[in-house]
Amino acid sequence: MEQDGIARRIIAAIKQRIHSGANRPGDSLPSTRALAAEWGASRTTVTAAYNQLAAEGYLIIRQGARAIVAAGLEMTSEGAPHTAAQPRNLSAFARRLLALPSPAGAQPARVADFRYGDLSGADFPVLAWRRASNKAILRRGARLRYGDAQGSLALRNALQSYLWRARGINCAPDQIVIVNGSQQGLDLCARLLLDPGDPFVMENPGYPLARHAFAAAGGVAVPVAVDAEGLRTDSLPPARLACVTPSHQFPLGGVLSAARRRSLLAWATATGAYIVEDDYDGEYRHDITPIPPLQTLDAEAVIYVGTFSKTLSPTLRLGYLVAPAGLCRAFSEAKRLTDRHAPMLEQDVLAELLTSGAYERHVRSIRRKNTERREVLLQALADHLGPRVAVAGAETGLHVVAWMNGIAAGREPAIIAAAHAAGIGLYPVSPLYDPSEPRPETAGFILGYAGLDAEALRRGVAVLATILAEHR
Amino acid sequence: MEQDGIARRIIAAIKQRIHSGANRPGDSLPSTRALAAEWGASRTTVTAAYNQLAAEGYLIIRQGARAIVAAGLEMTSEGAPHTAAQPRNLSAFARRLLALPSPAGAQPARVADFRYGDLSGADFPVLAWRRASNKAILRRGARLRYGDAQGSLALRNALQSYLWRARGINCAPDQIVIVNGSQQGLDLCARLLLDPGDPFVMENPGYPLARHAFAAAGGVAVPVAVDAEGLRTDSLPPARLACVTPSHQFPLGGVLSAARRRSLLAWATATGAYIVEDDYDGEYRHDITPIPPLQTLDAEAVIYVGTFSKTLSPTLRLGYLVAPAGLCRAFSEAKRLTDRHAPMLEQDVLAELLTSGAYERHVRSIRRKNTERREVLLQALADHLGPRVAVAGAETGLHVVAWMNGIAAGREPAIIAAAHAAGIGLYPVSPLYDPSEPRPETAGFILGYAGLDAEALRRGVAVLATILAEHR
Repeated sequence: MEQDGIARRIIAAIKQRIHSGANRPGDSLPSTRALAAEWGASRTTVTAAYNQLAAEGYLIIRQGARAIVAAGLEMTSEGAPHTAAQPRNLSAFARRLLALPSPAGAQPARVADFRYGDLSGADFPVLAWRRASNKAILRRGARLRYGDAQGSLALRNALQSYLWRARGINCAPDQIVIVNGSQQGLDLCARLLLDPGDPFVMENPGYPLARHAFAAAGGVAVPVAVDAEGLRTDSLPPARLACVTPSHQFPLGGVLSAARRRSLLAWATATGAYIVEDDYDGEYRHDITPIPPLQTLDAEAVIYVGTFSKTLSPTLRLGYLVAPAGLCRAFSEAKRLTDRHAPMLEQDVLAELLTSGAYERHVRSIRRKNTERREVLLQALADHLGPRVAVAGAETGLHVVAWMNGIAAGREPAIIAAAHAAGIGLYPVSPLYDPSEPRPETAGFILGYAGLDAEALRRGVAVLATILAEHR
Repeated sequence: MEQDGIARRIIAAIKQRIHSGANRPGDSLPSTRALAAEWGASRTTVTAAYNQLAAEGYLIIRQGARAIVAAGLEMTSEGAPHTAAQPRNLSAFARRLLALPSPAGAQPARVADFRYGDLSGADFPVLAWRRASNKAILRRGARLRYGDAQGSLALRNALQSYLWRARGINCAPDQIVIVNGSQQGLDLCARLLLDPGDPFVMENPGYPLARHAFAAAGGVAVPVAVDAEGLRTDSLPPARLACVTPSHQFPLGGVLSAARRRSLLAWATATGAYIVEDDYDGEYRHDITPIPPLQTLDAEAVIYVGTFSKTLSPTLRLGYLVAPAGLCRAFSEAKRLTDRHAPMLEQDVLAELLTSGAYERHVRSIRRKNTERREVLLQALADHLGPRVAVAGAETGLHVVAWMNGIAAGREPAIIAAAHAAGIGLYPVSPLYDPSEPRPETAGFILGYAGLDAEALRRGVAVLATILAEHR
């Protein structure tokens, strides 16, 4: 950047002569005066170029003598770029990873995109975030230095009281690890708790990126069916861990019943397994109070994974773990080696929002908005499809599953293509089933509604009804 | 939260009766009217409590009949909390991780903290960051959704031209992966490229968190000595990868010579090894232009790891990889499973700073400030210690190594303790050596200067000189 164009060209020319063998080790180079004359440059420029080449080890410069080409350069090839397209050795982890299916990317949808996991940009608490963010930047310390691997103590303290107030979780700040979204929480669980070949219990259907994280670590998925009460616990096989979504089974939406909660915990105690509780949308319960997490029943067996992706934004990449006391050091050290700690500025902003009460006001507001969106969606489904659709999992969360009575699952690709052509983003349930298990016979779609306004929801369902009528 | 205190107490009381066996499955509960009278509550409150208990699976409610206790609850224990302090099974990764030494935490230092890696809070570009941040928040999309696993295209495009201008790196945006600081870059390399038992070449002394990331993945460190020209390449053993700091060897500060660069690349080609180039402070070259990275000589063998920790702030957790084309998909998928992608807001801010030119103006400014700090430090060392100190690695970077001539390495702990008592944070070189290799005989300290002002640097060295005089 400080080097001007001519010095850069001189450096390139000399390197080229050395690489091509025109100048060999021990050869003297022209004096700076001579080269300056040759290039029409100042001696200062040439001297800078020689110094740079010396610093890179191409030349040796001695006071009062001409620069010479350094030894050791002759052992190189012509400097031609390697063109190997195939990677060299990859680890077993990489090979397992590359064998997994890549998730489909989002496609633009004119009328309504029912993609699950999106929130509306209009719901983001812009003013509160900006205010807290500007405050946090001004309040930065005299020294900018790496922080606590588990996350800032201010945020963990604020989160501790929030978790008690909102979810009934009673934990110490030392049990909390701030992670980059729940995906990192799942990945850390996979790394710390699974060895290649270890079985893990996975809800079927279930969340693919959880299954993939555990499978990439070498775990062997043991799919266990779910029904309207969540994971079926009547015949749990031995495993090293179980990954579950008790508050709102993903994707089918069942709430794990109290009997099954106890049965799952008894299994964990008997087998020494850990339970990873992915409470991905526990804030959204539309009719009644949120159900206390599994973690509140057994703080030694359950690793609770929470996220801000469903209340603030999935783009923030902020989540947290509540780990059993015996695992805290492992999670803390793993977080440090993985990426040191979560970004400080956003942790400070979040701590401010939590302690000021702004976060809970925002959650109440966005919960109300999503309850309204849900009403609109359910009403539209009833109006346009009536008994031709069976809706599951509407009690909690930000999506429902719509089973299309009388339409075979084999029609899903055609329906999705027609929907896309009509400006509707539509996502099937079937890919969420374990690939080794039978898939449902009826076509079913996950309808996420948190990113859509009432008008888009109504139009989207109307268009969908027309398309379905053609595929019946 | 929406539930008032009395409903909460009713729920807890009924759960307690069920857990204790006072109410057994199939038992009828009191009518809502009776319970409301008993508790002095409204029937609405009792109904809400019963609904909540039903949703959690404790009760079964049928229209017009009394609620009954659900089946399946009798198989549980008394609900006593587990008190196992020891973790259950941990993975081999976790066991390796927990066997590594934890880094020492920062301790407050009254006069001067020479801790390496810290920046001065006063150097952070507050106005530019706030402006770009407020702009990015306002410009957020209509939908908040997961982004590209490799990072936002705007940032990768901006980074591509920056890397070409500033470091001579010629890469496609598809080869760039935005990571949460260089530590995540190193960890992804470890996961993708090393299997348990694989040897990796590590500079000795070298960066402990790199060694730890590779060792936790199961790699076996092969320490290779460094001298004033960086890694000694005369007898490199076979290995799966080598982790090097060619621009400024950490910690000793040598710049890898051109001959050794070529010899290292020839070794990688011959053995099929990858080279992880940790360019942690490549922006800081005090006398001459930055030296082009190894990556520019062999884009197929080298994974380049860059960071914003030394130019903006270590607390941001933003860095990047430039991966060989053949490894891009592996890095992209690994980043997705690890934590989806880097935070979007900060990526947007950084892209704005890079494209507006604000980032490069800032780099020029902070480089000038750190060149000044370096001058002050070197002058103070010369003034106060003269020939009693041998300074290494001052040409580049944000720290120097000071070897204390005539003071045995065994005195380091006493000197550090005395320094701490006098308000000086002091950090020895010796822990950066591979534990299996001999350590230096002379006491040596890493003096980071980027977090200190001129006054603190001068006072710090003066106090240090007094302490050293007492330990000679």
